Amino acid sequence: MSKTVDFYFDFSSPYGYLSSEKIEDLADRCDCTVVWRPYLMGVVMKITERKPLVHIPMLSDYSKKDLNRFARFEGIEFNQPSTFPIATVVACRAYYWLERIDKEKAKELARALFRAYFIQDEMISQRDVVISIAAGLGIDSNDLRAALEDVSIKQAVRDATDGAVKQEIFGSPFFVVDDEQFWGHDRMGLLEAWIKTGGW
Amino acid sequence: MSKTVDFYFDFSSPYGYLSSEKIEDLADRCDCTVVWRPYLMGVVMKITERKPLVHIPMLSDYSKKDLNRFARFEGIEFNQPSTFPIATVVACRAYYWLERIDKEKAKELARALFRAYFIQDEMISQRDVVISIAAGLGIDSNDLRAALEDVSIKQAVRDATDGAVKQEIFGSPFFVVDDEQFWGHDRMGLLEAWIKTGGW
Repeated sequence: MSKTVDFYFDFSSPYGYLSSEKIEDLADRCDCTVVWRPYLMGVVMKITERKPLVHIPMLSDYSKKDLNRFARFEGIEFNQPSTFPIATVVACRAYYWLERIDKEKAKELARALFRAYFIQDEMISQRDVVISIAAGLGIDSNDLRAALEDVSIKQAVRDATDGAVKQEIFGSPFFVVDDEQFWGHDRMGLLEAWIKTGGW
Repeated sequence: MSKTVDFYFDFSSPYGYLSSEKIEDLADRCDCTVVWRPYLMGVVMKITERKPLVHIPMLSDYSKKDLNRFARFEGIEFNQPSTFPIATVVACRAYYWLERIDKEKAKELARALFRAYFIQDEMISQRDVVISIAAGLGIDSNDLRAALEDVSIKQAVRDATDGAVKQEIFGSPFFVVDDEQFWGHDRMGLLEAWIKTGGW
């Protein structure tokens, strides 16, 4: 049976975006299935007493350079959004609603949301922006609009976030395979080696 | 003319230790020279308002696992020291004194200090421990003992640390080549690609 990789991320995370562009290729090479798990990382940032790199002296400038350098190295289009970070609860709700209906379509929406934010500088924190992006993929706007107010969908996002915290997921991107945790886009090489070798 | 890689680290940094075991091989592959630059990272940790990973919930457990996993992956012996982090000013002074006399010997001492701490759990924060390790490499104990109290050597460590901060070096390991900064053991692959291709 093929392994499952849980891929945790926040839609506001630039390194999460980079991984979103690469994780399915990695899974294909490893004959794995990926479960995409967007969550609200703000909760765990508080628990771990951290703040976004952009708010830390020195690390702010460096992380911008590092992101652009990584993106160019991997051939991924990337532009630092003008507003950062942003609230991603609407994007998460849209994702978990669609996942109930069509898992692959939900991943497609996730990729489209990431690209809208990290290439086109679109404010995916806003409901109408998310609905418009989804409409571009053929997703019914009225259905999605209703889903964004649905109590069970709101709860699904809370559950995803609480579940991540309980499993000590504290970053984005964050991968789990065989109960083994890998934090960061820069651990994808190690993740792939782990899966291919069965660990060490 | 071959390029120079500046390799900044704190003797108390486990990822710095991992890099110290690999950086000269990387340099050989790239026809580069490495300048080892130990410094006291505590200063810049304060400026960037950070604390060691081991003092952060969740990240503490993860970073221990990640370190061991990385070390095993790369075939580097590693044991988490019983006391961590430690003061590294004595180790830095020994390094900068010896560097004035014999650069290669100074690197040899740096590697021996790292290994003593991260394999043998020796307290390299202590003067007598550093002197004993140096003696094992044929370094005169009386000369080193005198050097550790030398005003100009003390100043050399302060200068190295101030210089690092001025250049916005904020981590360990931290590499600089062609004014391009690379932070973290996990950026060594990118560093090597950068040197070999001339950057992108």
